[in-house]
Amino acid sequence: MPDMSVYILTLRCMNRPGIVAAISSTLFGAGCDITEAQQFDAWESRSFFMRVVFRMPVHAAAETTLRDAVATMAREFEMHWTLRARAQPTRTVLMVSRFDHCLVDLLYRWRIGELSIDPVAIIANHPRETYADIDFGDIAFHYLPVTAATRPVQEARIWDIVSGTGAELVVLARYMQVLSDSLVSRLAGRCINIHHSFLPGFKGARPYHQAFARGVKLIGATAHFVTGDLDEGPIIEQDVERISHADSPDDLVRKGRDIERRVLARAVRYFTECRIIPDGRKTIVFSA
Amino acid sequence: MPDMSVYILTLRCMNRPGIVAAISSTLFGAGCDITEAQQFDAWESRSFFMRVVFRMPVHAAAETTLRDAVATMAREFEMHWTLRARAQPTRTVLMVSRFDHCLVDLLYRWRIGELSIDPVAIIANHPRETYADIDFGDIAFHYLPVTAATRPVQEARIWDIVSGTGAELVVLARYMQVLSDSLVSRLAGRCINIHHSFLPGFKGARPYHQAFARGVKLIGATAHFVTGDLDEGPIIEQDVERISHADSPDDLVRKGRDIERRVLARAVRYFTECRIIPDGRKTIVFSA
Amino acid sequence: MPDMSVYILTLRCMNRPGIVAAISSTLFGAGCDITEAQQFDAWESRSFFMRVVFRMPVHAAAETTLRDAVATMAREFEMHWTLRARAQPTRTVLMVSRFDHCLVDLLYRWRIGELSIDPVAIIANHPRETYADIDFGDIAFHYLPVTAATRPVQEARIWDIVSGTGAELVVLARYMQVLSDSLVSRLAGRCINIHHSFLPGFKGARPYHQAFARGVKLIGATAHFVTGDLDEGPIIEQDVERISHADSPDDLVRKGRDIERRVLARAVRYFTECRIIPDGRKTIVFSA
Amino acid sequence: MPDMSVYILTLRCMNRPGIVAAISSTLFGAGCDITEAQQFDAWESRSFFMRVVFRMPVHAAAETTLRDAVATMAREFEMHWTLRARAQPTRTVLMVSRFDHCLVDLLYRWRIGELSIDPVAIIANHPRETYADIDFGDIAFHYLPVTAATRPVQEARIWDIVSGTGAELVVLARYMQVLSDSLVSRLAGRCINIHHSFLPGFKGARPYHQAFARGVKLIGATAHFVTGDLDEGPIIEQDVERISHADSPDDLVRKGRDIERRVLARAVRYFTECRIIPDGRKTIVFSA
Repeated sequence: MPDMSVYILTLRCMNRPGIVAAISSTLFGAGCDITEAQQFDAWESRSFFMRVVFRMPVHAAAETTLRDAVATMAREFEMHWTLRARAQPTRTVLMVSRFDHCLVDLLYRWRIGELSIDPVAIIANHPRETYADIDFGDIAFHYLPVTAATRPVQEARIWDIVSGTGAELVVLARYMQVLSDSLVSRLAGRCINIHHSFLPGFKGARPYHQAFARGVKLIGATAHFVTGDLDEGPIIEQDVERISHADSPDDLVRKGRDIERRVLARAVRYFTECRIIPDGRKTIVFSA
Repeated sequence: MPDMSVYILTLRCMNRPGIVAAISSTLFGAGCDITEAQQFDAWESRSFFMRVVFRMPVHAAAETTLRDAVATMAREFEMHWTLRARAQPTRTVLMVSRFDHCLVDLLYRWRIGELSIDPVAIIANHPRETYADIDFGDIAFHYLPVTAATRPVQEARIWDIVSGTGAELVVLARYMQVLSDSLVSRLAGRCINIHHSFLPGFKGARPYHQAFARGVKLIGATAHFVTGDLDEGPIIEQDVERISHADSPDDLVRKGRDIERRVLARAVRYFTECRIIPDGRKTIVFSA
Repeated sequence: MPDMSVYILTLRCMNRPGIVAAISSTLFGAGCDITEAQQFDAWESRSFFMRVVFRMPVHAAAETTLRDAVATMAREFEMHWTLRARAQPTRTVLMVSRFDHCLVDLLYRWRIGELSIDPVAIIANHPRETYADIDFGDIAFHYLPVTAATRPVQEARIWDIVSGTGAELVVLARYMQVLSDSLVSRLAGRCINIHHSFLPGFKGARPYHQAFARGVKLIGATAHFVTGDLDEGPIIEQDVERISHADSPDDLVRKGRDIERRVLARAVRYFTECRIIPDGRKTIVFSA
Repeated sequence: MPDMSVYILTLRCMNRPGIVAAISSTLFGAGCDITEAQQFDAWESRSFFMRVVFRMPVHAAAETTLRDAVATMAREFEMHWTLRARAQPTRTVLMVSRFDHCLVDLLYRWRIGELSIDPVAIIANHPRETYADIDFGDIAFHYLPVTAATRPVQEARIWDIVSGTGAELVVLARYMQVLSDSLVSRLAGRCINIHHSFLPGFKGARPYHQAFARGVKLIGATAHFVTGDLDEGPIIEQDVERISHADSPDDLVRKGRDIERRVLARAVRYFTECRIIPDGRKTIVFSA
């Protein structure tokens, strides 16, 4: 029996009969063995979404041959598609401001092999000593402070790092600076933010203090793709925790840290496992 | 040993040293035995809140004597207070529109003795046949249809029923008509609504369709006191359930029904057990 | 465009390459349009499971033709399979003892069209007056009291009702009598029980009292298929709720009712929507 | 106005009238101002439990005077009691085996000031290089490998460290060795373990594999006090997460890590804030 390598195919197209038959025939014809498949038929937009995990025999031209076959089929159905070897980690830039709980958590999950990222750079708008307790190992650290006046220059540096490292994903791990529309559009579909509230509940600054003032009984966090419309990007994952009148704003911040780090870690994992397919203002997340 | 009767005392005042000592001395002096006590010190408003459950020997003048003692103490601390025999059910008016899942649920919980209400009337803006499958037993049913033009007259009828029955609580169990400011102010602090979204997320009409359009990953419901500022009254209880891209608006409505009925039932139970103390825009809920 | 009818196909077989291709080709060849598909590859048993929802043009011989095509394919892969029109409600017998919260809940969900069952009979070991508040409408009610001595006779009556009504599903909605191995085996794979604890935590009688004695911080309920090994049948659905030291056994029973009814309702819905495929001691549940 | 210092008093005694009055009078008499109080009346054992947080003016003999006053009152009611300055961190020994996610998490929470512990030692049965990525700062690290033969000697070393450092708390942060009855009894009431299952569901070794084999739909973790009866000590905190048939044992282990670290962190926080009062086989946890 030949060695097998695992791939993940995602695709999106207008729905019409025969898509699944075409995909499964194409993969079967290439000697592949499907082990997981998830699909979704969005009746409102008449769109079809699919994620397929399969094993393929390892030989010299295997991936090229497969890509050609998928491309041929994709043309017929006008599909948007991605194909990725599951073993290949996602090249990731991590951005952070003063609070480092999400950063520390992502790095820990990466170190123990839970998260299949390759952290190619850390960008912070605070100096290295802010994170004195964290061992960044070999990961390049960039201190890029920013003011209104220096934003264009700072963002040019960010873009140099992202493009220079070939980053496939940028994670705003409690990076508290607003990105310009121009940078956001260049990072479209590959920049994930963690908003420290349960959107669309409390947009803008200091959401835990807003939640306290309003007297809600649950607080939450939201991981979403970054778009020009702040706090309105497509939502990837959310979670909540129960609070009461007895929780002070500081308690909310403390409980919030736990929610933020687990929501962001899930969103990053979904991204690295090709579980997220954008759908306009929304996302399809094939979460398990 | 004498027969004992259980009472619940709630109070609110400005915080200062000696309150708890005064309360416990007063109750101890009246022969009472405290079995539960919860308190909260709201640092922001410098207010103090307390709920005390206690047993009192049953004899002719016991409650009167106790009320006098509490009143004397309350004057000293300028307390707002309530005292209620736990065994006494809360006289309740239930209001409903077309969807009856909350109404049916509350009536079931009442029938099996879970909810200590005395349902003195049901008011609906749909006719009796809309609820053909529900056995209302001896509860008076009032069909009060309403249009913009007839609202004043209809609300006068509502008020007659509320005041005529001596109702202590009005529950809007998916009653989908907006009440006038005038009626709302007369029901202040004793009218509970279930809003079918996780406030402040999706205010206004058709919140599940709003949630679907926005692509959130959790939906919820909110029980709150009704105030003139619609969807902004003090929140009593909230809960959520996980959804995904695969849930249609109809699925959200179905999942929502489960959340709505359990959130509303909890809020009503908290009210009947004197667990809620209003605090401006917020509530103190001594929930367990 | 022809009228379309929705069908659900489920299947199980040993895994090998080409299954998905064969299924999608078969359905495509029959003019069907797949709208949902879920699959699972159980590496431990090398089994493959799939659920496919599809639209089929309505014409005279359509279902027969399709069944023949599926049967031919199924023989090749040695599949176990089921095919069902989604619009067809599941003929269901509901069994109950003294506590009726699950029964009332299932009937309510059926009445508002949430649950696609056809309740063909209610069997109780308590007399009709125990459920005086419930309107059973046209559903046949059978009072079948039971003692150790009369069990064989009573179970023969149960079996007569099940087979006489052509019931596809038997729901033990807090029916507190143990069924004999003989009856259990005749109901294999189509009898769902709600156990009022989070299995395998507290098996046997009075689980909430066991939970209280042990001091756990969460209680739960479990819906499972009934097997000869009591409390050990394949689990379909579970849920929990938080409790504290302040909850009495009565409080646990109250909170438990809410969990039981929502867990059982979900399990019944999964069954009627062909979302459950048995896998030895476990179940595959394509829940969303 | 004098400087104020915050103290926490916990107590337990047989219930009888007048306890709360005595406590509040005693504290009021000592110039203290109660800011939080929680109490519980355990009807089954007729025991009374209370936790009181209060501010006390800072002056030379304040704490001594207060201790004398509390002791006098405590004798009258035969109370077990503790009194602690809230600002004083809990001297804590952390024990760990190969998996370090709980250890890393506790240290992070300590570093950012979330957890009021003073980590006086780390004890591991694996060598320092197992934790090469963790910066232990100034915390003493002890590598104490153990076999059946060396257990008595190893445990003598553990005890030396615990008593030598004056540790008030020992946390088994995924320390996978069974402690002897002798050591356990010396650590009674101050040794917390995290069991990686939802007790009493899956006791013993490899609980996630047990959960997988049984096909449960939720997995959990349990923090409990260690007693001689393994996996049976009083439970402090539990939590769960949803799983499905699609989760492999490795997925359960991954999801389990998240539950374990948050359950253990909560239990440790409750301990440091004097929120836990033992009650035989159970615990009273005044959690908020």
